[in-house]
This record gives sequence, C-alpha cells and structure tokens, in this order.
Amino acid sequence: MKKEIPYKIYLEETELPKQWLNLRAFRPNKPAPLLHPTTFQPMTQADMEQVFCAELAKQELDDSTPFIDIPQEIIDFYKMYRPAPLIRAYCLEKALGTPAKIYYKFEGNNTSGSHKLNSAIAQAYYAKQQGLKGVTTETGAGQWGTALSMACAYFGLDCKVFMVKCSYEQKPFRREVMRTYGANVTPSPSTTTEIGRKILEEFPGTSGSLGCAISEAVETASKLDGYRYALGSVLNQVLLHQSVIGLESKTALDKYGEKADIIIGCAGGGSNLGGLIAPFMAEKLQGKADYQFIAVEPSSCPTLTRGKYVYDYCDTGKVCPLQKMYTLGSGFIPAASHAGGLRYHGMTSTLSQLYDEGLMQARSVKQTEVFAAAEQFARVEGILPAPESAHAIRVAMDEALKCKETGEQKTILFGLTGTGYFDMMSYEKFHDGKMSDYIPTQAELQKGLDGLPKI
Amino acid sequence: MKKEIPYKIYLEETELPKQWLNLRAFRPNKPAPLLHPTTFQPMTQADMEQVFCAELAKQELDDSTPFIDIPQEIIDFYKMYRPAPLIRAYCLEKALGTPAKIYYKFEGNNTSGSHKLNSAIAQAYYAKQQGLKGVTTETGAGQWGTALSMACAYFGLDCKVFMVKCSYEQKPFRREVMRTYGANVTPSPSTTTEIGRKILEEFPGTSGSLGCAISEAVETASKLDGYRYALGSVLNQVLLHQSVIGLESKTALDKYGEKADIIIGCAGGGSNLGGLIAPFMAEKLQGKADYQFIAVEPSSCPTLTRGKYVYDYCDTGKVCPLQKMYTLGSGFIPAASHAGGLRYHGMTSTLSQLYDEGLMQARSVKQTEVFAAAEQFARVEGILPAPESAHAIRVAMDEALKCKETGEQKTILFGLTGTGYFDMMSYEKFHDGKMSDYIPTQAELQKGLDGLPKI
Repeated sequence: MKKEIPYKIYLEETELPKQWLNLRAFRPNKPAPLLHPTTFQPMTQADMEQVFCAELAKQELDDSTPFIDIPQEIIDFYKMYRPAPLIRAYCLEKALGTPAKIYYKFEGNNTSGSHKLNSAIAQAYYAKQQGLKGVTTETGAGQWGTALSMACAYFGLDCKVFMVKCSYEQKPFRREVMRTYGANVTPSPSTTTEIGRKILEEFPGTSGSLGCAISEAVETASKLDGYRYALGSVLNQVLLHQSVIGLESKTALDKYGEKADIIIGCAGGGSNLGGLIAPFMAEKLQGKADYQFIAVEPSSCPTLTRGKYVYDYCDTGKVCPLQKMYTLGSGFIPAASHAGGLRYHGMTSTLSQLYDEGLMQARSVKQTEVFAAAEQFARVEGILPAPESAHAIRVAMDEALKCKETGEQKTILFGLTGTGYFDMMSYEKFHDGKMSDYIPTQAELQKGLDGLPKI
Repeated sequence: MKKEIPYKIYLEETELPKQWLNLRAFRPNKPAPLLHPTTFQPMTQADMEQVFCAELAKQELDDSTPFIDIPQEIIDFYKMYRPAPLIRAYCLEKALGTPAKIYYKFEGNNTSGSHKLNSAIAQAYYAKQQGLKGVTTETGAGQWGTALSMACAYFGLDCKVFMVKCSYEQKPFRREVMRTYGANVTPSPSTTTEIGRKILEEFPGTSGSLGCAISEAVETASKLDGYRYALGSVLNQVLLHQSVIGLESKTALDKYGEKADIIIGCAGGGSNLGGLIAPFMAEKLQGKADYQFIAVEPSSCPTLTRGKYVYDYCDTGKVCPLQKMYTLGSGFIPAASHAGGLRYHGMTSTLSQLYDEGLMQARSVKQTEVFAAAEQFARVEGILPAPESAHAIRVAMDEALKCKETGEQKTILFGLTGTGYFDMMSYEKFHDGKMSDYIPTQAELQKGLDGLPKI
C-alpha cells in the first residue's frame, strides 16, 4: 500500500545527496567545447584557471565523470537549509479542480531567497581551499549576489559584487542584505573597470545589464591578487552543483512511489532547470524512463523559443569564454522585465543542446499572465513566489488545466526557485494595472542576432 | 544511546499538535478578569461578542479547560507551513565557543514572515464558521496584517487592515504583500473613523501608533454589518493558538532526549513568548520540571522592566476591554524604534501575572546591541532575523557566553519568530552607523503612567 503523501516531504539530513550528478557525462553526444574569447580555440584547464579557481575549472571541463563527491564541508552547510521540501500542492489542485497531481520543489527557504545558494557555497568552498582572498561576481535580481555573500561570510572570504544598476536602484534592500553578509556592492556599469568606463561613455544613461556586470566582475578578478571570478548560472559547474535540487526531488518522489510525467522549470541562464531535471534527464538518456521537460522563459527575452543555436559570448564585454548555445546575441538588451533573473541573452549549453535535440521543450509566457498565476498561487498555497519562479507556476497551472479538460491524472513537478519578498514593486505595478507585456518584434531581435560572432 | 541531533528537527505532519494548550487553566491563581471599557465591570460573553466572533469570545474567557481541540480545517492549513523546524544552532555555538547547547524554534518560513499566522488562521476560521463577511484589524510592523490577509484569502473573507502610518510609509512592500492577498489597507490614523479624525485633529502630524490603529479597527468592525475585530497579540485566545510553537518545540526536544534549561523569547504584546513557554510553564506550575524563562524587550519600550502592574486599556481610543497587565500607559508613545512589533505599551495579562509572581524574568536590551547580534547570527546561521526576533538572539547569545565563562553546559531554547526581509531599512541604518539607542527617562515614562485609569 502506498504511504499517504504529506503536504511537505522533508527528507532526513542523512538522505542529502552525497554526490552531484554531472548530466553531460550521460550524454552520448558530447557538448561542444567552450572557446577562448580571443583565439576561438577550445578552452584548456590552464585558460580556465585564469578566471576560475582550479577545482571549478576542472569541473567546468569534465564531461565524463557521472557523479562527483560533495565535500563534507559543503554538506554541512547544506544542512542549514537542506533538504529543501518537496511540496504537494493539494490546495492548488483543489482550487484548479484538476485531476492532476502537482508537486513543487521549494528552494526559497533560505536568506538568499532562491536555489542560488547551492552553487554559491560550492564556489566559495573551492576558493577557500585554494587559499584565495576573495571572489568577484555580478548580480541581476540580487539572489545570486546574496547567495555568494552568504557563502563568503561563512568561509571568511571577501566578496565583491557588481549589481546591475537598475536593480541596485530599485532594490536597495537586496543590497543591504548583501552588506549584512559583509559584501562590497558596486552598481554596474561603474567607473572602477575599463569595460565599465567604456560602456558608460558609449551609453551614458544606461541602467546596465547582466552581460556588462559579468565583464566588470571578470576584469576586477583578473586585476586583483588572490581573487577569482564566480558565476551563478550558465556554467556547467553551476548545473552540476544545482543537481541537488533534482536528486532530492527524485528521492522524495521515489520514497512515496510517485513518478513525474511533466517536469517544468523557469529558465534564465538555466541553472535551476538544469539542476531540477538532472537525474530525470539522465534516466531518459539511458532509456530507463520517459519524462516531458518544459523550459519556461519570458516572452520579453525568448532565448530558446526565438534565439539561434550558435557560439556566442557569455558577456557584453566579450572577456568570457564562448559557449555554443541558444542566444539572442550578447548585445541584446532585454526590455525592462520584472523577472530580473530571466533577462539573460543566452542559455547554458547543456540545456541548449537538449532542446536542440528535441529532448526538452520550451515555452514563452507573458508577464501579466505570470503575475496572475503568482497571485493565485500565493493565495492558495501561502508562498509568495519570485516572479522568475512564477513562470514555472504559470505553465504548471496551464498543464493542470489541460488535465482538467482531458481528465488525465498526470503528475506534474515544477521548480519553485524562490520567494518574491524583494519584488513587491513589480507586484505593486501588477495590482495597480500598470504592468504591460512586451514581445520584441523580429526586427528588434535581429539587431542582437546580427551582432553574433562569426565562427 | 541518544540519537544524533540533526541541524534541523522537523516533526512529521502526524505529530502536529491536535490540541492547543490553555496556560491559564494550569494556574492555581486565576488571572484578573477583563473589564468593560466604560462600566469597568468584568466582561461577559455577550460583551465580548460585540467585538469578537462567538467562539473566540468563549476562548478569551475560558480559564479552566486545559486543552482545546484544534479544528481539522486549521490543522490542514497548519500543514502548509508547519511543523516549523526546531534548529540546533551548531554554527552559532561554534562561533561563540560556548559549551552551551542552543536551539531555536524558527517561525519565519511562511509568507507572513512570522508566527502570527498561527493565530490568524484560527481567527479567520471561526469568523468563517460564524458566517461573517470579514474582519478588521490593525498592524504595526506588518507581520500580523500579512498573516490575517493570508488567512482571510484562504477562507474567502474580506480583510480590512489599519496600518500604523509610519510603517505604511516606510514599508510599502509589506502593504503590497497584503494587497497580493486581497486585503484593504488604510494608513492609521485615518479619516474613515471617528477616533482617527479626533486623533488627527489633536495631533495633526502624527505617524500613528498601534493603540490608535486598534481603536480604528474596533470602531470599523462595530459599524459594519457582518464584521468582527481580530487582534494579533495580547489576548488570551492568541496565546492559546500560539501554544503550537511551544508544543512542537517540546515534542521535538523530547524526541531527542533533550531538556531546556533556559527559554527565551522577545516580548511585545507577548503572543510569541506566551506560545513558546506554554507547555514548559505548565510543567513548572505543576511542579513536574523547572525552567528559567526570560522575556526580552527593547530598552525603548520597557513594559515589564519599568512599567506598572495595573488595569489599563489595550488601545489609545479606550474602546477595548481593560486588562490587568504590566503597562507604560495606553497614552505612552514609544520612541521610533525599529522593532515595530515590540512597541506596544502593555503586556498580555497571563505573562504579566507570571512575571509579577516571579515565575518568569525580564530583561531589556539596547537596539544597537540587538542589531549586532542579528548580524552575527545571520552570518553564521544563514537566517536573516527580524529585529524583534533578534532581541531573543541577543539574550540567548549573552547566556551562551556566560556558559563559556562558567563552563556550564546549559541547554538554551529561544524563539526565532521571523525574518527581517522587510526591515532592511533598519539594517541599513545600522550598517551606516546611523542607529542610536534610546532609553526613556523616568520623567518621560511618568507621563504615560500618569494617564493610567484609576480603578
């Protein structure tokens, strides 16, 4: 007999994953290599170590080790906020009147407010192991910067954060959280870097972009002794660390004899979705089980649904390695969307390849529909979602409503990456009817695509 | 052999309390009755029902039933965010170098950001049962208003919140959270009530007070058909509902064979502390076990440590019943302190009596010392505490450091009532060195005490 399923499934601390899952190692078709930003040759370990600390450079290039041990110090930190609950959305199911079973993995129960902490602590740990003084990074919506600040505080590392200017101004409280954890926060573009000064000269009134903040952080790390750069998404290493999301989810579902039919996640750079689907996709690639995967992106920044699958830079300043990925062009400046974490021009290469090969689907959704879903979810499930996470809620609800029509009792799993406490300005716009939807025209997208490197 | 204690102890949903504990029923000395605000006669059930819904009026007056069943609908709602974790502060212990064992019960993992939801859902439930249209209330820091908004959204009740004007202006995001849950939020004092208009006339530039907002909410409920008033602290019914905090804590500690020596909570109106200590104090009153209890209050609003134990009004407008309690006088206007939730002039009668009889201690702490503790805690334990909760952290740390001196291995339990995501303006002041401490002079306190009713 099946066990009765509680509202929240909490694994024991002893059930925390002891190894990360490296999805690329399960691929018969190996991913295209990262390319050096000036030579366009495949990046070597030595090249990578100029930017990242040694162990992370190694993880970044490793596409053959299926499981990588999680160091005990990181497991101990995970215990402060993990295992994260897998929640059965009984109340949402009832409100929708759907026969579908809906589960969500909630990653918001920590001060960074999102899943970002899973990789931040790993990156800080390896930097500490290498004897570094500190790390630099960028942050858009602020979750990643907060997460890295927390991780650095834990290991006594310095943390320099370049925060996209519009977020810095719109979210002063996020900045204060980072300061609480001892981080140094600079609005980007800034006058402290060459690339920042160049961009300010070219676009004097700019409110910044993630791509630009990345360039500034990389430049700063390269000029300071004992510093390396840390990135919160897009990279292979980040997807590796984020696999704890999926591993815990699968263990929890298995424990109750449940199997997901559809797995849904929002996708900016792809770290959350890549982590959530990892063990399920590994099964699919091995032919052990089948799942439907859906990546959800904002219609204002439709990387997968309207981008191109080519080599592109990860940053505006073109100082980072190139990835083969779905991209709108590193020069694409996304419209002011409130889901700051989903405003990235590219998509991590692993997910890009899976999408290109038809192993994963993608859907773009409008902002106002996302906020309508967010509000309904908040009222019935009690959790106030981050706008980014609400993209996944929107599609999960759409799929559940389809089941209502067809009568199918599908099992839906989605990733609820974080909370929206620092996004109330966007909620306010929504409540006041001042929120609009933006879908770029083909001509607007073409500008970004025209700037793609010719490789 | 004792089980190894995890970082976080999560009870199973089946271990949720099925009954609340009514601490007053364990008292040999019954508490002094509530008095009618105009006749000064003991409040009857009928009097109470003018203000509160019938079942809550009954609970308010019940000082003989030791345990009261929790309705299944409320237990179902509790399952969305409870059992709350009991956390072993391994990292804080290590950072302090103390031999003490520190536990905290964390109530912040829900959107209201605090323990307030425990009583809000009960009050909304009984209102719904009675067929009411809605409830009115006041909110200071905003946690209670958010909690009641969430509870009302769940049961489809209207919710009208009077928010102390200074909070309304300083915390627009809190207001938006309430709006997300469909509440109607009005800054207090407002022109929508008689008492509001009167206060605005007398003090044109006032930024409001909790006592005034209470009066406005009570007046509004009394004038609308199908509405009653709901209050988030001070009342017996609230302490009753909050006993889930203590009951869960005790079950979790018992499970691991642990016994607290010292139990610490911050105290504004007393709801969190009253709930946390309930089962432990019941044991103490029955002579079954001994514990040291410490109530922590801000030095800017020193109700227990410098107030008087007399009958006083719960609100500025003198429309609510009087309680015998420690009070600074309902006319006391606390200095601008950032722990908005602790700025109340009185202390719930149950705790007041326990303190008066020497069964509980009290300590007042300075704001800057509280924020220093908050920041250290955030860095090592990862949770960003609400300023209110940080009062308890301060004293827990002080007690743990005493153990370091004496070598005693005491077990400390404190209540971490909530998170500080909406209090970053206060953290900013602290980081920028712009936060000051305020301790009222005896002459300043005397003004409030001079206004006490002569009963």
